[in-house]
Amino acid sequence: MSKVLEIIKKRHSIRAYQNKEIPENILKDIESALILAPSAGNLQARKFYFVKDRKIKIEIARASLSQMFIAEAPVVIVGCTDSSIQHRYGERGVKLYSIQDVAISVSFAMLVAEEYGLGTVWIGAFNEKEVSQILNLSENLRPVVILPMGYPDEEPYLTDRRSKKELIEYI
Amino acid sequence: MSKVLEIIKKRHSIRAYQNKEIPENILKDIESALILAPSAGNLQARKFYFVKDRKIKIEIARASLSQMFIAEAPVVIVGCTDSSIQHRYGERGVKLYSIQDVAISVSFAMLVAEEYGLGTVWIGAFNEKEVSQILNLSENLRPVVILPMGYPDEEPYLTDRRSKKELIEYI
Repeated sequence: MSKVLEIIKKRHSIRAYQNKEIPENILKDIESALILAPSAGNLQARKFYFVKDRKIKIEIARASLSQMFIAEAPVVIVGCTDSSIQHRYGERGVKLYSIQDVAISVSFAMLVAEEYGLGTVWIGAFNEKEVSQILNLSENLRPVVILPMGYPDEEPYLTDRRSKKELIEYI
Repeated sequence: MSKVLEIIKKRHSIRAYQNKEIPENILKDIESALILAPSAGNLQARKFYFVKDRKIKIEIARASLSQMFIAEAPVVIVGCTDSSIQHRYGERGVKLYSIQDVAISVSFAMLVAEEYGLGTVWIGAFNEKEVSQILNLSENLRPVVILPMGYPDEEPYLTDRRSKKELIEYI
């Protein structure tokens, strides 16, 4: 079977993390996964913040419906779209392509993290304005995903999926 | 090194495909990758069409700025968001979460495809209305990505990436 699919099958959202640093070499591989993901016109209209500062992590957690577990992760990645993509692709670039480009990066990073035994969870429920202020983002950047990352300190809660029959159709 | 990162590094966009079917077991793994990707509230607000019909592939290619190579792929996956997500997450669900949810699925599928030696390319430039009509999509579905898939019939064109320094910041 596909090794990647094995990793996909093992991956579950993790919301509790051990108090244990993530080694440099693993972070480098996570960075590479983010960077090497494809993007519209290869413009790479995206930017990633790796937040390790405890105070800032707490502020981000508060801006995320007070999901305070976020602050316990050794690294919290914040993925941002870059609206400068509009110069080539207009509104479709801003509202679709750049969101997808960040999502592809973070998806790739999640699987590399899983392979290294790290837990992550994709967070979309947060106040964008507050997170932008906390990170002091420039006007062109919009935070669209928060990904806490750390060694799991819980057994994952397993979720079901809808059937292939429901979600996939051959034509 | 991470096996997933090796696969990410090998992946490049492929726009020419051999006239060779994709085996059933591989398609099953691609389906699993799409289905097992995480999604907002596990709602799985997404649907995927696997288009094999030659006439329909040609229509889709025409609706994609006449990028006719799309029609040469043995399988063309069309990923759609499902606006029924609005019942739980409102506009943010429709305009952000469901787009991300489809993107995560397709990202996972791309890496499984790469591992099996298949080539893909993420296509966002198409006329959504035309593709919706071609596939006879229900009102709630919106096509947001087209992914032709097949055994490569070209050497990939290698693209550069912006530097980590530019795209990643530690805080």
